[in-house]
Amino acid sequence: MTPSDLPRDRLRHFRGARFGIGELARARQLVDEQGKALILPYDQFIEHDSRHLDAESDAGNPRYILDLARRGGYTGVAIHYGLSARYWPELEGAVPLIVKLNGKTSIPSQDLAFSAHTSFVEDAVRIGATAVGYTMYYGSPRQDEDFVQLARVRRECERYGLPLIVWAYPRGRDMVQKGGIDTSYAIESATRVAVELGATIVKANIPKPGAAGYIDNSGVPEYYRRLEGELREMSDHESLQVRCDRVVRAAQGIPVLFSGGSRIGDEDLLYRAEVCVKAGCLGFIFGRNMWKREASKALEITERLRSLLHEAE
Amino acid sequence: MTPSDLPRDRLRHFRGARFGIGELARARQLVDEQGKALILPYDQFIEHDSRHLDAESDAGNPRYILDLARRGGYTGVAIHYGLSARYWPELEGAVPLIVKLNGKTSIPSQDLAFSAHTSFVEDAVRIGATAVGYTMYYGSPRQDEDFVQLARVRRECERYGLPLIVWAYPRGRDMVQKGGIDTSYAIESATRVAVELGATIVKANIPKPGAAGYIDNSGVPEYYRRLEGELREMSDHESLQVRCDRVVRAAQGIPVLFSGGSRIGDEDLLYRAEVCVKAGCLGFIFGRNMWKREASKALEITERLRSLLHEAE
Amino acid sequence: MTPSDLPRDRLRHFRGARFGIGELARARQLVDEQGKALILPYDQFIEHDSRHLDAESDAGNPRYILDLARRGGYTGVAIHYGLSARYWPELEGAVPLIVKLNGKTSIPSQDLAFSAHTSFVEDAVRIGATAVGYTMYYGSPRQDEDFVQLARVRRECERYGLPLIVWAYPRGRDMVQKGGIDTSYAIESATRVAVELGATIVKANIPKPGAAGYIDNSGVPEYYRRLEGELREMSDHESLQVRCDRVVRAAQGIPVLFSGGSRIGDEDLLYRAEVCVKAGCLGFIFGRNMWKREASKALEITERLRSLLHEAE
Amino acid sequence: MTPSDLPRDRLRHFRGARFGIGELARARQLVDEQGKALILPYDQFIEHDSRHLDAESDAGNPRYILDLARRGGYTGVAIHYGLSARYWPELEGAVPLIVKLNGKTSIPSQDLAFSAHTSFVEDAVRIGATAVGYTMYYGSPRQDEDFVQLARVRRECERYGLPLIVWAYPRGRDMVQKGGIDTSYAIESATRVAVELGATIVKANIPKPGAAGYIDNSGVPEYYRRLEGELREMSDHESLQVRCDRVVRAAQGIPVLFSGGSRIGDEDLLYRAEVCVKAGCLGFIFGRNMWKREASKALEITERLRSLLHEAE
Amino acid sequence: MTPSDLPRDRLRHFRGARFGIGELARARQLVDEQGKALILPYDQFIEHDSRHLDAESDAGNPRYILDLARRGGYTGVAIHYGLSARYWPELEGAVPLIVKLNGKTSIPSQDLAFSAHTSFVEDAVRIGATAVGYTMYYGSPRQDEDFVQLARVRRECERYGLPLIVWAYPRGRDMVQKGGIDTSYAIESATRVAVELGATIVKANIPKPGAAGYIDNSGVPEYYRRLEGELREMSDHESLQVRCDRVVRAAQGIPVLFSGGSRIGDEDLLYRAEVCVKAGCLGFIFGRNMWKREASKALEITERLRSLLHEAE
Repeated sequence: MTPSDLPRDRLRHFRGARFGIGELARARQLVDEQGKALILPYDQFIEHDSRHLDAESDAGNPRYILDLARRGGYTGVAIHYGLSARYWPELEGAVPLIVKLNGKTSIPSQDLAFSAHTSFVEDAVRIGATAVGYTMYYGSPRQDEDFVQLARVRRECERYGLPLIVWAYPRGRDMVQKGGIDTSYAIESATRVAVELGATIVKANIPKPGAAGYIDNSGVPEYYRRLEGELREMSDHESLQVRCDRVVRAAQGIPVLFSGGSRIGDEDLLYRAEVCVKAGCLGFIFGRNMWKREASKALEITERLRSLLHEAE
Repeated sequence: MTPSDLPRDRLRHFRGARFGIGELARARQLVDEQGKALILPYDQFIEHDSRHLDAESDAGNPRYILDLARRGGYTGVAIHYGLSARYWPELEGAVPLIVKLNGKTSIPSQDLAFSAHTSFVEDAVRIGATAVGYTMYYGSPRQDEDFVQLARVRRECERYGLPLIVWAYPRGRDMVQKGGIDTSYAIESATRVAVELGATIVKANIPKPGAAGYIDNSGVPEYYRRLEGELREMSDHESLQVRCDRVVRAAQGIPVLFSGGSRIGDEDLLYRAEVCVKAGCLGFIFGRNMWKREASKALEITERLRSLLHEAE
Repeated sequence: MTPSDLPRDRLRHFRGARFGIGELARARQLVDEQGKALILPYDQFIEHDSRHLDAESDAGNPRYILDLARRGGYTGVAIHYGLSARYWPELEGAVPLIVKLNGKTSIPSQDLAFSAHTSFVEDAVRIGATAVGYTMYYGSPRQDEDFVQLARVRRECERYGLPLIVWAYPRGRDMVQKGGIDTSYAIESATRVAVELGATIVKANIPKPGAAGYIDNSGVPEYYRRLEGELREMSDHESLQVRCDRVVRAAQGIPVLFSGGSRIGDEDLLYRAEVCVKAGCLGFIFGRNMWKREASKALEITERLRSLLHEAE
Repeated sequence: MTPSDLPRDRLRHFRGARFGIGELARARQLVDEQGKALILPYDQFIEHDSRHLDAESDAGNPRYILDLARRGGYTGVAIHYGLSARYWPELEGAVPLIVKLNGKTSIPSQDLAFSAHTSFVEDAVRIGATAVGYTMYYGSPRQDEDFVQLARVRRECERYGLPLIVWAYPRGRDMVQKGGIDTSYAIESATRVAVELGATIVKANIPKPGAAGYIDNSGVPEYYRRLEGELREMSDHESLQVRCDRVVRAAQGIPVLFSGGSRIGDEDLLYRAEVCVKAGCLGFIFGRNMWKREASKALEITERLRSLLHEAE
Repeated sequence: MTPSDLPRDRLRHFRGARFGIGELARARQLVDEQGKALILPYDQFIEHDSRHLDAESDAGNPRYILDLARRGGYTGVAIHYGLSARYWPELEGAVPLIVKLNGKTSIPSQDLAFSAHTSFVEDAVRIGATAVGYTMYYGSPRQDEDFVQLARVRRECERYGLPLIVWAYPRGRDMVQKGGIDTSYAIESATRVAVELGATIVKANIPKPGAAGYIDNSGVPEYYRRLEGELREMSDHESLQVRCDRVVRAAQGIPVLFSGGSRIGDEDLLYRAEVCVKAGCLGFIFGRNMWKREASKALEITERLRSLLHEAE
């Protein structure tokens, strides 16, 4: 294929800001020829204990996951170092590796959430990873430790020319008191801070409406309470679109991957994905919604997600 | 232009103490030919979450901000590393960069305020910054961590000949109990400590009168309670001027930049700026009052601030 | 002996994933010709104070233990550095050494359990250890310190090609509230996390049934409450087998050593061992059940355990 | 001047123990030809906020202070790094510099007092300091951090041959409960620990009588309660002399500088100074009592202090 | 003297385990020709404040102590670095130096006891120390920091071939609740852990009977409650002997030095010393019982202790 055959600019989602040379070269590996990303995250057996064994698939088996990623044409798989070093080599590089660098379990309270290193950037480099993933807990009382840990990871990523995907997650007791971890307020602010700290790509959740009482919560800035009021005037569809558009805009040209969150039904998933695509996201990073489905179903949905992404723009 | 054409000593605000060679050479880049500084700070999307999207401008867009800095003839823009590396390069050095090295969010309690690294001095050096910014929380229970973090930043700045601008902010539960974070007592003391720790330039807020009960607050030193009493005898204008004069004096020859704080009206802003100029400040570091205004208005006000600065002395 | 004489693949328990070159070469030393491991752990005089002096043997004497390991044909002995450096040399390498790198005592509360270094990987390398042991407390509020400490140990192990045996132990006040530290939920999750962080071998306890009220404990994921219900429908034998099978499966091809826990009777021990063997474990790491027995009895039981292991498959 | 003209051994206060080569050579610079030291400390604008602006002099001005030190013939000035680097160079070395390496503010509670680095030994070396000062808070719950921080400073001082002056201050909630921070018990113990940790010179406060109830305070060792009883039998003069003698003796040959504490009247100051001189101190380190006086008065008192010191022995 | 003249194997107390080359060579310097050690510890002015000025001797004077050590033929003196560097050189090596590396004061609560560095192994090496001393607080809630600090000291000791004497002290609120810090349970367990972590020599206290209620204290292991019951059946003498024998046995061939604790009468001291000798200790490390006595009395008792030691075996 000659350059003129390229259907579109493969890196166009990375034209919104200046990226490093190696960072861009590797970002290219994380997207398909249409420039879109479909990432399979599989760090949930640290984050959520082993409860996902309730899946309709062989979800506990890393080889199953890796094979699913390969068969589904995923552009990356995000796993911790132990799985990276033990099972990923069998793919012989067929699916790019994103080493998830930090984690925490579901057991202690989330009040003071902090996600600690399970491996280091140099580990990821050594085994041929294309990128690293880092969870930042926006608003946690331990944000000071988080910021400096992330700053060091970012510095190492620059040293090696590695893209840094930031899981931008609002979390902690104060965030809960300020309306919760899923509101537009929380998610937009977290997304923005990931950009401020140098993320190559931001992984964000799809925002949800504020709970009852949200509009009167004095812990929430007036701007966001007013916004919530306006969103409530809209149809559910329209307000969801606005929420997702705003997350992408919060990232100010830094590409956004939307998470899928806990497992939901096919139509709901596809409906939400379509909204995300319209919002201009780089792609999806859906885990439980993929690998907890039965394999053929997962592959079918994957294909539909890819179509949605490719139809965009 | 030959030296004899120079209207005045460009570095005269840096004659009040001994500065390093590189420090001075770069300080020169942070002031205009009249020796005055107009800095545009834009770290508020970390500090205050995303509430400033309520602006009359495209305030959430780093490119908008950088362009505003360029069009307004600002002598520096103060931003975090992520924005520095991603968007500032587009200015091709037209506005000097001040990398803001630390930050915290608005979400957890401010009782134990501590501002953690989001990047490091070497990051700033590598991308061509002219200076770095550091927030010091005077009076916070975590001041011990702050002091040593600042001491290390200062040491690195000396190594690379980089000016160090210290955001000298009273903060924390004890400061609140001792009359608040905005009094002359708090701000003068914070300014002084920034100087004691080696700031090249101090960024200070304009002090406010103590709240009701201040004069009887036994947590406040007698000297400052007496001062407050004297200030209350004066006209509002006179007392404001004294307060600002005292902040500049507290810095003992180290140049002072006054912050603008939350957004206020045009006349109020210009009135306060005039007082600051009379107090002998190096210049202004007004953020929200600039970029939350509509662009043409912001540029107009910028011009008026510059005139005020140039008329000084 | 020529390769064709080898009864079976000595490293077949290490075919389930990719291991490093030195890691595999040394893992070979930790198993017998049948590929099975019998490890004698002796870190309990740190973990449980000196209460085990109530043994029927000279259990407090490291030389007794080391001699027992030699006479019993153990494939490894796991001890802390002080004992390693002082007594193990007398064996002249006859039993491979596993240096236990971290520990804690029984005295302070287990609520915030954390096991600190008593020596370092380089110490183990220097004195000729074949592997290192590390205790990870899954679910402890101090898991963040544990993860990063373990990540560093793992990194060092890779540097030196040393197998890393992880004591995967649920622990801490939150784990207790979520049904206890011995349930299938707790142990499977801990085992899995050890694998996610890069263990070469996982040491796990045999799970026990949840206590009364377990099925209604909202802190336990629904999946595991349902599982508990199903296990209660089975015979004791069948449910024990399922529990052990599941632990081995949780390790996803990473070899599992089962612990013996506190001392139990001969028949009970052998019964449980048989279940473990059927579950497909790499072998046993029984301490108190060996060295607290009178020596001849311990050797006899050791022999029976070995037979069980060799009869497997 | 030939050695035979020397009125007395300039370093005789440093004959009570073994000092290092560079340590002694620099200690010589800190005393006058009579071997006595008059040090002007000026770290109070960190320690006590800016309340000392109530002085009868231009006390807030570092240049004023430095000039006072020069005019008064002080043998050293103790200031933090920021002032050292910015203003001290103007003296062109006329008064030796003691960089005060750590500090804390008056704002948070003193219960857990800890004084953190504001600069490092290498900073002091680089700018030509003759010695460094370090505040140790004897008895604070954070003494473990203090001890190790001090041990590292001491190690660096040895590396560079720099004298280490330790501000030996009892502090913290437990010290308060054990009779207060100014008793002979507290100050002698603190002085001693400074010596145990390697101080070149100890800075101590003049002890005060225990408060009412002191003799029955079970937190105070019986020895010191008995001592207090004995001291109460003496005249005020005699007991003050004994208290000061004991502090010097507590230092066991390591030279002692007495602090002046908060400002007191001329006669009181001179009276106390005479007692200190009789106790055999190396000299004085009086700050507020010097620079809060009007300049000519300060110089006059300085001269009288010097006479007292020179008349000694 | 030819080897055949040697009355007995000078290092026979170090035949119970493997020691390093330099460790052994230096251990030789810490014992007399009969192979016994008499160490004078003098770290109490940090540990117990200055209360020991109530001595019948010039106990506060380091020179007095060092001279006492020399005159008494002590085989080592254990002091902190400040005293080591300032006063010990006067002995010109006549008494081997043991630098006590860590300490804490008596002022804050002992609940969370932790002993912090006052100097480092390299400091000890540089000034010619023969060994180092380290206080480990068995059972303290801060044991994790203690373990890793000790592990690092041990590693440094190995690097330089320096013997490591561990003060094995039960301590902290949990130990108090589990029957106290002086019971056989506490002291045997602490001794053992010192061995597990690599001590060259263990310093232990002589155990005392458990307090009233001990036998019913559910925090104490059944084994030790039963032991306590058995000991209560014995005569006081017999039980004391058993307690001391058990401490030596707990060390498993690693030499034990018994502490003297607070000052007691001559006969009591000698009686207890005899029991310790019979138990097979390496020697004594008696401080207050030596230097708080009048000098001639101290030397006399020292001589009697030496005789006891030499008569042993």
